[in-house]
Amino acid sequence: MDYEIFDLGDLVLQGGATIRNCQLAYKTFGTLNAAKDNVIVYPTWYSGQHDANEWLIGAGMALDPATQFIIIPNMIGNGLSSSPSNTPEPYNGPRFPNVTPYDNVRAQHRLITEKFGIERIRLVTGWSMGALQTFHWGALYPDMVERIAPFCGSAKCSRHNFVFLEGVKAALTADAGFAGGWYKSKPETGLRAMARVYAGWGFSQAFYRQELDLKTLGYSSLEDFLVAFWEGFFLPKDANNLLTMLWTWQHGDISANEMYHGDFHKALGAITAKAYVMPGATDLYFPVADSEIEVAHMPNAQLIPVPSVWGHFAGGPGTNPVDVAFIDGKLKELLAS
Amino acid sequence: MDYEIFDLGDLVLQGGATIRNCQLAYKTFGTLNAAKDNVIVYPTWYSGQHDANEWLIGAGMALDPATQFIIIPNMIGNGLSSSPSNTPEPYNGPRFPNVTPYDNVRAQHRLITEKFGIERIRLVTGWSMGALQTFHWGALYPDMVERIAPFCGSAKCSRHNFVFLEGVKAALTADAGFAGGWYKSKPETGLRAMARVYAGWGFSQAFYRQELDLKTLGYSSLEDFLVAFWEGFFLPKDANNLLTMLWTWQHGDISANEMYHGDFHKALGAITAKAYVMPGATDLYFPVADSEIEVAHMPNAQLIPVPSVWGHFAGGPGTNPVDVAFIDGKLKELLAS
Repeated sequence: MDYEIFDLGDLVLQGGATIRNCQLAYKTFGTLNAAKDNVIVYPTWYSGQHDANEWLIGAGMALDPATQFIIIPNMIGNGLSSSPSNTPEPYNGPRFPNVTPYDNVRAQHRLITEKFGIERIRLVTGWSMGALQTFHWGALYPDMVERIAPFCGSAKCSRHNFVFLEGVKAALTADAGFAGGWYKSKPETGLRAMARVYAGWGFSQAFYRQELDLKTLGYSSLEDFLVAFWEGFFLPKDANNLLTMLWTWQHGDISANEMYHGDFHKALGAITAKAYVMPGATDLYFPVADSEIEVAHMPNAQLIPVPSVWGHFAGGPGTNPVDVAFIDGKLKELLAS
Repeated sequence: MDYEIFDLGDLVLQGGATIRNCQLAYKTFGTLNAAKDNVIVYPTWYSGQHDANEWLIGAGMALDPATQFIIIPNMIGNGLSSSPSNTPEPYNGPRFPNVTPYDNVRAQHRLITEKFGIERIRLVTGWSMGALQTFHWGALYPDMVERIAPFCGSAKCSRHNFVFLEGVKAALTADAGFAGGWYKSKPETGLRAMARVYAGWGFSQAFYRQELDLKTLGYSSLEDFLVAFWEGFFLPKDANNLLTMLWTWQHGDISANEMYHGDFHKALGAITAKAYVMPGATDLYFPVADSEIEVAHMPNAQLIPVPSVWGHFAGGPGTNPVDVAFIDGKLKELLAS
């Protein structure tokens, strides 16, 4: 295996449940320097594992292992960290507890401090749910985090975003084979339905209008794109894991904790890190307007939309090289500041 | 019953099937004048029946029965005109044939001409799939149609729109109770899943951000809106009827016929009617950009976005009085020209 495990022991969650012997899977790139001041934290996105983050790391890039020490913590529920699919009875499968982004970032903070003794973080960055965790890092540990660069994500799941996810969940669980999460074999119909619902949200109207699925990504037809890209994306994933992360997403809110007591504007105001907030210009679930509101309440933030027709995929996972170059360039600029 | 039936006889469809003894349900408002020059045709929308069009008709409105003769033809598959739910064996249920918008408008043309002897139409207008049929009227009968006002719809189902509908369809049919269309009782799980998928598409991000579901529509919570409005909307409808109309929508294209042989720009160019093309400014499935392209190829068209955060529901069905007033005002302006 190409990653490490940090044993969190018994992780007590915001919701009251305990994940016993909770495992946090992570991967690092580069070397922590003696001053411990070259740290970048880069959380994962919905259903992605650490390898699905690697497109933004490389020689000559902002996230360059030659100079930076990059830590990718896997989100709880993603199949590598503790998840429905790998947790022993009795908290296995659909009994796996609800986990908030707060729970995730608190666990990641323990990894960073207890395992590595890190006190300062140069940058936290991430795509989508990785951006959600990035905002949490900024709000929960303002004295530790120097810079954040959340892209194609939000500090709080918007009501519209919540509804979109309700549709995704309803499609998956409409399959009788899902069996309330006690499936003996993969709920294939539900996973494929979920994929088709997702397909309209993931890329923008302009992306489809310009036929970039064919002309750039090289699929042979729209149906081929739906089957090969979208169904192919979700079919290998565990349904309960997907639902655990979906719940995490829906309940994302940097202020839903004892620090901010639901005062969202106060939590945004507490993010003193220098922030580049980078929504995708055509993202259908994290529209620029939501980022504008966030930035207006953050003391040290700039709004930098990614000028792209790739919708949510402007931010990842390395799908469009032009967008990768844009984001990488902004990260370099931010790190140099 | 509050509507009439026009017997189309054996309707041979574009796809080659025949709906024998095909019934076209319609309702009229007002009186056809002696000159037969006060005719407005107002087709129905996805899953709607004629009564769901009546919000745009009334004394003092553009569509005023005191002066206009308004005909609402029910779309084939909507449960009143010939549909999976009311067609006898062997073309019943999931065996009901695929029907294009072209098939629908050709049938409506027979009603208009054979039943009423009408040669000129002052205005064709409609919301959503009603707009799709409106564009077809303009392209198929340019010498007959003086004005068209399609709102929140398109002349051709865009690829993105097609994908959104794939998600809706996948959610509905993921329910094993759907049984390939041979359900003995309502596929309730699938209908509810379909409703949840639709919910994110129907209204805009801004609508949800501003909590208009609560503050204007009066629902008691977001979940109440999803259950009472959305699930309540789809549950009474027949699943096969919904899929028939969905197929019609996905295959909407004013040029997919022997007049235009797939030349979409040519078909748009043939719409000589004075046209007000009115997309919803925040409609997620019929974005303004698609209407812009259409208008650019139409010789006598104006682009008039409906300035609204109500997404697709800016266009109907009378949900937001401000939008109704806007559309009604533009129809008056168009009729006066």
